[in-house]
Amino acid sequence: MHATLPWSHDKLLFTPGPLTTSLEVKASMLHDAGSWHYEFNARVKWIRDRLLEVAGRPAGSGWEAVLLQGSGTFGIEAVFLTCVPPEGEVVVLANGAYGERAVRMLEYARIRHRVLRTPEDTPADPAALERLLGAEAGITHVMAVHCETTSGILNPIAELGEVARRHGRAYMVDAMSSFGALPIDLEACGIDYLVSSANKCLEGVPGFSLVLCRRSRLLACEGWARSLSMDLLSQWRGFEQNGQFRYTPPTHALLAFARALEELELEGGAAARLRRYQRNHAVLMEGTRRLGLRPYLRPEVQSPIITSFHYPADPRFRFEEFYRRLSDKGFIIYPGKISQVNLFRIGTIGRLFETDLRGLVQAMGEALSEMGVSRVGGVQV
Amino acid sequence: MHATLPWSHDKLLFTPGPLTTSLEVKASMLHDAGSWHYEFNARVKWIRDRLLEVAGRPAGSGWEAVLLQGSGTFGIEAVFLTCVPPEGEVVVLANGAYGERAVRMLEYARIRHRVLRTPEDTPADPAALERLLGAEAGITHVMAVHCETTSGILNPIAELGEVARRHGRAYMVDAMSSFGALPIDLEACGIDYLVSSANKCLEGVPGFSLVLCRRSRLLACEGWARSLSMDLLSQWRGFEQNGQFRYTPPTHALLAFARALEELELEGGAAARLRRYQRNHAVLMEGTRRLGLRPYLRPEVQSPIITSFHYPADPRFRFEEFYRRLSDKGFIIYPGKISQVNLFRIGTIGRLFETDLRGLVQAMGEALSEMGVSRVGGVQV
Repeated sequence: MHATLPWSHDKLLFTPGPLTTSLEVKASMLHDAGSWHYEFNARVKWIRDRLLEVAGRPAGSGWEAVLLQGSGTFGIEAVFLTCVPPEGEVVVLANGAYGERAVRMLEYARIRHRVLRTPEDTPADPAALERLLGAEAGITHVMAVHCETTSGILNPIAELGEVARRHGRAYMVDAMSSFGALPIDLEACGIDYLVSSANKCLEGVPGFSLVLCRRSRLLACEGWARSLSMDLLSQWRGFEQNGQFRYTPPTHALLAFARALEELELEGGAAARLRRYQRNHAVLMEGTRRLGLRPYLRPEVQSPIITSFHYPADPRFRFEEFYRRLSDKGFIIYPGKISQVNLFRIGTIGRLFETDLRGLVQAMGEALSEMGVSRVGGVQV
Repeated sequence: MHATLPWSHDKLLFTPGPLTTSLEVKASMLHDAGSWHYEFNARVKWIRDRLLEVAGRPAGSGWEAVLLQGSGTFGIEAVFLTCVPPEGEVVVLANGAYGERAVRMLEYARIRHRVLRTPEDTPADPAALERLLGAEAGITHVMAVHCETTSGILNPIAELGEVARRHGRAYMVDAMSSFGALPIDLEACGIDYLVSSANKCLEGVPGFSLVLCRRSRLLACEGWARSLSMDLLSQWRGFEQNGQFRYTPPTHALLAFARALEELELEGGAAARLRRYQRNHAVLMEGTRRLGLRPYLRPEVQSPIITSFHYPADPRFRFEEFYRRLSDKGFIIYPGKISQVNLFRIGTIGRLFETDLRGLVQAMGEALSEMGVSRVGGVQV
């Protein structure tokens, strides 16, 4: 399909996912599995059990892992559509596009909700949540985003959860781009529902989302679901009853995910993976500093997952050209998503190593130089 | 993961999907594509255009192809949740589990609806639809299942569509297991929405559904969507605006699907594929007749997609053992799904050829003989 000579490997993805995965993960998809077949069902069961172990809450500890077809967004919406009662009200802590997306879901579903916003470079505020929950007894659910990949900012999910728990509200966390690397203690954070995806720090391929549910909370949701496909409780019952997805699962993505979970263990678990991502991030920050590029966030709130950079001040910088030049060199970066500032983003997760980040920084320097961009520091507005 | 010696190929899947695909389709997944990247977006555009060509309604002819993450069921529910107005009412023609599943979706979404049921071995009745639509002006949408894989029966979608069109109602067809093989003339059938899936007759891998929409109908659905993830109109706008899925697509499944569409063309298009499936089905029917197995449906209403067979009358026949013996021989069949009768099912779609069906029939004979089943004909109740 391409007129050009193919590379020996795919272009590397410096994005928040879908990301670069290992060849072994992809090669696991060279098989057709029967979605009703007992061998496949055993693999799904293994995946669900293993996920609970990765979360530190193994089977029998009061937690359940539910897999749902579709992207991570489907998993978030499924929690809202299944677990908020008809008269429920949700407060969303928003400081980026993923918090705002949650708000839109609630609008679509006609679920009562409020939004506590902070600027896109400022973490969510537990004190504001404290004041709101103290004043509004009708709020039943609190929703926060762990790593807001809009900017790469980390929100204080433990402090927010402490407030939610003290007020007896259900607490849901979008841990899409953090679960599997950043440590999350479900009980210490008071989390009831954690949503993540196969194709982020767990380094699988896209096709389904993962919802870790406090079993008692999930079982209390009987009769609330607003969508059949996204009924998490029925989905869980299906797994328990016959080991199957209720509807056709992405069999190949699941086979890949089983291998991805094995590779997480081979690497030394989430702690070792985090160390690799932190090294990737350190190489990126050191290299971009040398190039004169300015990060958007303060280091204290910056995740090692994805990092936003200001456009160089030089008017010769055009993002589309920069992006295409990097792509031609084999490196795919990510555009910005912040409302008011011109940024681009570099992800440091996936099957990437320090040497890949050094290659990227080198290519960024070449691309800027080819474009004649000299005034790199500063901000283009 | 398996203690046994691996096969040189996967067990063959005689199921209605996920099914056996070509190695080339699976090998297309050995690549990580950036979901925001222009090369990937061009592939998605190619897929959407090609689907309209397969449907005989190429781009510009008033039809649109919308891809949605998740299984085929998500595509069906997305049409209901997006395209039925708040005061709309749907009539579902049901003669199996997939018609009943549509009814459950409408219950979940609190959408007004009625059901016209026929027995599971009897096609939907256009005369009954005619009477209902003549009497009930409030019904806005008609929903039918083309090939009801519960039994393998074919429903008269052209005749039903003629009635729906004459009464000016929107018409939606679940063509999950028929599109890409059985001929469907969207205009002649008066269809407004056709839903299918990547992993049926188009022989891709599971991960998304396909919705072919009459453009004028889709554009009229503004403001009705009840779910963000399943908002088909917004999904379509996303493709049109920037070529992207709104939320993370199953990139690998899409790369596989592009190859699957190329292979459909290599085979000679839908007509040639149907001929292969018909030959598969003929070999199956001839072989099972020799074995004394009795099909559930009359030949006039039987599809070449999937076929239901009665359990042999001999009490020594136990389906679980039969299934496991066939699996051990490398052949995976499908259990029955009919409410009142004991059946098993054999799919004849996917990358299967006459020789595979002959192998299956041979293995079925061996399995029955090993189980000591002699009274094969007749019905076990």
